[in-house]
Amino acid sequence: MDQPLNSEANSSNEEYIVETVVVNVFLSLIAGYLAHYLMKEYIPIFKQRGLFGKDMCKLNSGDIPEPMGVIAAAVYLIFVFLFISVPFIVWVQDSSGFPYVRLLSLLGGVISICAAILLGFVDDILDLRWRHKLLFPTLSSVPLLIVYKLSGHSTAMLLPKFIQPFIGTTYLDIGPLFYIYMGMLVIFCTNAINIIAGINGVEAGQGIVLGASIAIFNVIQIARLDVEEGWYHSLSLCLLLPFIATSVALYSLNRYPAKVFVGDTYCYWAGMLLAVVGILGHFSKTLLIFCVPQVFNFLYSIPQLFHFVPCPRHRLPRFDRDGDKKLHISVAEFEPEKISKLATIMVVTLRMTKLLKYEEFQKDGARWARINNLTILNLILKFTGPLYEYQLNNVFLGLQIACSALAFVGRFYFASFLYDEVH
Amino acid sequence: MDQPLNSEANSSNEEYIVETVVVNVFLSLIAGYLAHYLMKEYIPIFKQRGLFGKDMCKLNSGDIPEPMGVIAAAVYLIFVFLFISVPFIVWVQDSSGFPYVRLLSLLGGVISICAAILLGFVDDILDLRWRHKLLFPTLSSVPLLIVYKLSGHSTAMLLPKFIQPFIGTTYLDIGPLFYIYMGMLVIFCTNAINIIAGINGVEAGQGIVLGASIAIFNVIQIARLDVEEGWYHSLSLCLLLPFIATSVALYSLNRYPAKVFVGDTYCYWAGMLLAVVGILGHFSKTLLIFCVPQVFNFLYSIPQLFHFVPCPRHRLPRFDRDGDKKLHISVAEFEPEKISKLATIMVVTLRMTKLLKYEEFQKDGARWARINNLTILNLILKFTGPLYEYQLNNVFLGLQIACSALAFVGRFYFASFLYDEVH
Repeated sequence: MDQPLNSEANSSNEEYIVETVVVNVFLSLIAGYLAHYLMKEYIPIFKQRGLFGKDMCKLNSGDIPEPMGVIAAAVYLIFVFLFISVPFIVWVQDSSGFPYVRLLSLLGGVISICAAILLGFVDDILDLRWRHKLLFPTLSSVPLLIVYKLSGHSTAMLLPKFIQPFIGTTYLDIGPLFYIYMGMLVIFCTNAINIIAGINGVEAGQGIVLGASIAIFNVIQIARLDVEEGWYHSLSLCLLLPFIATSVALYSLNRYPAKVFVGDTYCYWAGMLLAVVGILGHFSKTLLIFCVPQVFNFLYSIPQLFHFVPCPRHRLPRFDRDGDKKLHISVAEFEPEKISKLATIMVVTLRMTKLLKYEEFQKDGARWARINNLTILNLILKFTGPLYEYQLNNVFLGLQIACSALAFVGRFYFASFLYDEVH
Repeated sequence: MDQPLNSEANSSNEEYIVETVVVNVFLSLIAGYLAHYLMKEYIPIFKQRGLFGKDMCKLNSGDIPEPMGVIAAAVYLIFVFLFISVPFIVWVQDSSGFPYVRLLSLLGGVISICAAILLGFVDDILDLRWRHKLLFPTLSSVPLLIVYKLSGHSTAMLLPKFIQPFIGTTYLDIGPLFYIYMGMLVIFCTNAINIIAGINGVEAGQGIVLGASIAIFNVIQIARLDVEEGWYHSLSLCLLLPFIATSVALYSLNRYPAKVFVGDTYCYWAGMLLAVVGILGHFSKTLLIFCVPQVFNFLYSIPQLFHFVPCPRHRLPRFDRDGDKKLHISVAEFEPEKISKLATIMVVTLRMTKLLKYEEFQKDGARWARINNLTILNLILKFTGPLYEYQLNNVFLGLQIACSALAFVGRFYFASFLYDEVH
């Protein structure tokens, strides 16, 4: 554990946090500018090397360079490397009382982020097999979990007030289960951005909204909490700000009509970064309430992901090439008699809750069903009707922003009904 | 700094180093096997994705997958992530006296290695511009240098005995210059394997010989030195062993006739790894004496690298496709009158020391000169005459092994004439 600090050191320490963040903001602005400049420079190079894709939601898109996220990520890493020493400069002359755990936290986080970028780029180029992909992000978070353990942070969960009398305790230490939870959080986050993808701007947009929401949360917590806890939030902030800046640069090129695609590289990078700041900042549970749209999308997708009902290879909304040029829901078809009982229950439940567009028709004398593919983008289209691509992106990002606003209310206001103390 | 340990703790600590290394050897063997298996599995995938090159030194090579080094590197990283917690397991129950600096050293090293692999793979795919490539490895070593500073290790150089009376001191503290030296060492090492490349097996072969030489040096030092210094050598050893194992797997596929190419990915990875273990193990000067062939090749190349004499784009030995199917020296041609005075001095010096094959001929009424391209591979061919590709690789690797043997003699025997104390 770090040395306890007396109150005088505390107040100078607080100033130091502010100075560190100011330096970071300055570096982040340069990073964003540089990322924008370099990505534009690399557009022709990507095309020369055959690194491009077609835009499925355009009449004639030409070749769109992909995965441009790797340039943004490389700029991000350069600026994090440059920044790494800044929070520790005060200890250069006198290393007694050096906050080893803080530096360890930073390095552990950088390892996971760097490994996620590497995995993402390799996946973009090689289309890795699923079984080869799962192990890598999980293992690359090992340093992070070691550091969590070292920081002496508790694995206890504060129980809601109404549950406390039944369990007979305020905190429940779930020990190793908490590490399993964090490991699963890493897997979830690494894929969270990726599972809502495929229309212009939506990946970088999610990254910006989620990053900015957590950054605001960090600022609030730095102001509210003591210096020790505040430091971990400032660490999170300093990893997020250059990410937001480079994501904005990427968004400016990736938004409708996209000049570049972000690739898996961006999705893994952004996802892992969120997991890292959540774990290092000690707010891994709060992190999830900002990710409600991603969690919802995952739960909503389960019937298709686990093949209870058929899952086509692409579940993107369908671009009406010959008609209104808008995005319509895309569909999956199956014979209702041939799916399992559990699948039938899922379908019926989704129909009852109005979360499914369901039609029946006759084919070759048999009864067939047609449902919308189970993604949040198709669900938005079910309620709003066909939308232009940029409209769908705006609606989704608006929804994500609304969820973030609700998350703040829930985190700070509603939580006081459940808990006596809200950290 | 780590807590000082008493002698009882020392001896149990020594046992612990041995146990850690044993676990590492076991993991390394699995890593080597797995790397071999996965690389073979990915050969057709690389070809499908268009990731292949032609073998210039074969009559008809077909498509050779490149950069296969990325698979070996990924397996390496997975095993390092798995291993990371092993040296620190004894502190799980009681974290008092936890050796923070040791964990920091390991994490700092892993960051640099991971960043080098990422850079290498991106370079293989995108052919980065030189100015974009230089910054990345330098900055990614920042964590490493911070950790060096933190470990309280000296920046003083022990002066040779015969110089001491003139300077009036035994040690000369060169302070910040030492950090500049380490930064330059990182740049040199990242490119060291790369500058002797292009014939089957030579990159992975260098990696294996250099890695094994340093591993043997580490074992000797663990046995000779006290536990604190020994630990840093065991850290070096534990980063090297899985590297050697995965390099052997790669060599088995890359040696003549090559089934795969290693790519820049392997070269950057191997080079950065050598720099990391040299710096973390506190033997960055000894590291260089193992790299004598690479240093020599760099110095020998200077007249061409800095364009004192013309430098063709490829300086590989020339494959005699229509004749004896052997490798011959490749040449550069220029008019001796038109090069600078400094260049003339270089050429004359090289001719006098018999390190240059020099011929003159007439072209368009002017006097022209023809010299061998200034690489160690061409120089070997100058002395041995044309060789088959596998022979040239064997001769070069034999030379590298001989240099390592000499390095041991120099490091432990000859150094005692120069210094009173040899660490």
